[in-house]
Amino acid sequence: MKAKARVLVMGYGVIGKRVADAVSLQDDMSLVGVSDVSSDWRIKMAMKKGYPIYAATTEALSKMRTAGIPVQGTAEDLLKQGAVDLIVDATPKDIGARNKEGLYKKYGVKAIFQGGEKANIADVSFVAQRNYEKALGKQFVRVVSCNTTAISRVVGGLHEAFGIKKARVTLVRRAVDVWESHESGVMNTVVPETKIPSHQGEDAKTVVEGLNIISIALKGSHNLYHLHTGYLEFNSPIKVEEALEALMKEPRVVLVRSSDGVMGLNSLVEIGRDLGRPRGDIFEVPVWSDLMKAEGNELYLMWATGNESIVIPENIDAIRAMMLLEEDSRKSIEKTDKSLGITKSLY
Amino acid sequence: MKAKARVLVMGYGVIGKRVADAVSLQDDMSLVGVSDVSSDWRIKMAMKKGYPIYAATTEALSKMRTAGIPVQGTAEDLLKQGAVDLIVDATPKDIGARNKEGLYKKYGVKAIFQGGEKANIADVSFVAQRNYEKALGKQFVRVVSCNTTAISRVVGGLHEAFGIKKARVTLVRRAVDVWESHESGVMNTVVPETKIPSHQGEDAKTVVEGLNIISIALKGSHNLYHLHTGYLEFNSPIKVEEALEALMKEPRVVLVRSSDGVMGLNSLVEIGRDLGRPRGDIFEVPVWSDLMKAEGNELYLMWATGNESIVIPENIDAIRAMMLLEEDSRKSIEKTDKSLGITKSLY
Repeated sequence: MKAKARVLVMGYGVIGKRVADAVSLQDDMSLVGVSDVSSDWRIKMAMKKGYPIYAATTEALSKMRTAGIPVQGTAEDLLKQGAVDLIVDATPKDIGARNKEGLYKKYGVKAIFQGGEKANIADVSFVAQRNYEKALGKQFVRVVSCNTTAISRVVGGLHEAFGIKKARVTLVRRAVDVWESHESGVMNTVVPETKIPSHQGEDAKTVVEGLNIISIALKGSHNLYHLHTGYLEFNSPIKVEEALEALMKEPRVVLVRSSDGVMGLNSLVEIGRDLGRPRGDIFEVPVWSDLMKAEGNELYLMWATGNESIVIPENIDAIRAMMLLEEDSRKSIEKTDKSLGITKSLY
Repeated sequence: MKAKARVLVMGYGVIGKRVADAVSLQDDMSLVGVSDVSSDWRIKMAMKKGYPIYAATTEALSKMRTAGIPVQGTAEDLLKQGAVDLIVDATPKDIGARNKEGLYKKYGVKAIFQGGEKANIADVSFVAQRNYEKALGKQFVRVVSCNTTAISRVVGGLHEAFGIKKARVTLVRRAVDVWESHESGVMNTVVPETKIPSHQGEDAKTVVEGLNIISIALKGSHNLYHLHTGYLEFNSPIKVEEALEALMKEPRVVLVRSSDGVMGLNSLVEIGRDLGRPRGDIFEVPVWSDLMKAEGNELYLMWATGNESIVIPENIDAIRAMMLLEEDSRKSIEKTDKSLGITKSLY
């Protein structure tokens, strides 16, 4: 049996804490620790879980010690010791790029970056079911953002199955994450992102080969999940049944129905909680099967995107590919999905 | 000079009260009164304005009198006396259809219905700058909904100027109107309308001749304004400058820029209030000129839709057309716009 991959999570925020939990669930990985700069309730939740805690900087080290956080040392200490095979960098935007130059290259360690970083930070922009093979053995991989992941799963899957001529996608994004909703709420408004095309469609092109896509993004007055509407124009006529069959075959895509009472994002949040998942996370992309309409070459549809959760299984698969723990994408996806309770049917 | 059109507003709600105010501002119309069934603060606002008040039913008449509302009689009394030329029916959905059969046909009075009624209630689905002429002298006209009006102005204008092959429009609707936000709020979610295509695109086809359009609608967690995103595919290449020039020529369409600080629907609400308009109403459709992108035959853009206000000038023009007070659409539009302070530049 291969040695377990020794993983450090850098940045214990919305994504990092979920990745840490998911890594802990894998039998071919071990969580060496989590690294952060915070001394507040957020890092104390990691203490409760018994995760070894490291400081991201020497400055943070003394602050965290003063605050009574049982810090083992700095992340760099760990790297110096050669105790880490791979870092999942889930730090805020642009810090990953700095860490890459200052730490990961220096110590020759592998690293996964998140979608907030620029595409050129890594050799591969990753979504497991689209391009697992490209990440095999690589030093640097970027797991794309939640929106791009959802587009790559749904639109990418249909593109591979039928060939899309042009995809037009509008995203209604959650305004802010739950944990920071006190400081930057978007109240009673809708706020356009100030660029067309928005980056998500462009980013999906880095994952789904040959995809012609345009996206427009809006921020809504809510803080849980995004909702996407898609106008997918194929190269030939498409039927709803065909599309549903293709999506049923896609891992991490589930079908839901408004006629089953799944009326909005709120229904999915409640379903996630009722399923007993950690934090109520939905790792799948729910597509409304009864709100789908085909017209000639074109398919109209809507799907939800769990902004906090859907990239978590992608991080796990990326680790497996980069560490050559598994060369078959389907086997890695199955293993990850089993460990996280990912299903083809939410109810 | 022609006799003034004697207008009764039936239903003193979100639309009715605004139409009553707008009719009062016209020199070729007189407001005979407003009719409703309510005895609460809403009808008392009409009392404050000195509008003659009528009861929509005999049942309402006694209730309103008991509540101390100075009711002149029932709407039917007025019709019997031949005191009304035209009714603007702004009652809730489906009541207009009942009124048409039970009252308007019986007394041979003209009537305007709102977009909530089915298209076949009237001879014409009306947006002034698209098909004013079709309403000339007609007995029954339907002023389409706010969303359909906005689509007809923006997409319809570009269609007439350049020829659209296919329009794909996503609408993020306000969840409920302000006045009823206590009883049916949509909190922290996005709720898809449970039909694709949503009715707004279909409805726009009843106004804009030869328009090929598909729309998907979502309810956001806000109660002021809708926001639309459009992917407009033309028959030939389109440039942003051409599109802006065409929209500048469209009445009741204004250009705004995010670089001027118009960041979202909230900015427009505040601008409406700062302009000193009654209720802060914006009757124009604001289109973000710096968030517009052209790519070959296709144009991507976003616009806002004042759900309470943008159909008001349409009602006034419809009255003028039906009563043959003015046969030239442009003259009627100019007259209405001047009376309401409608502009080509909000700031």
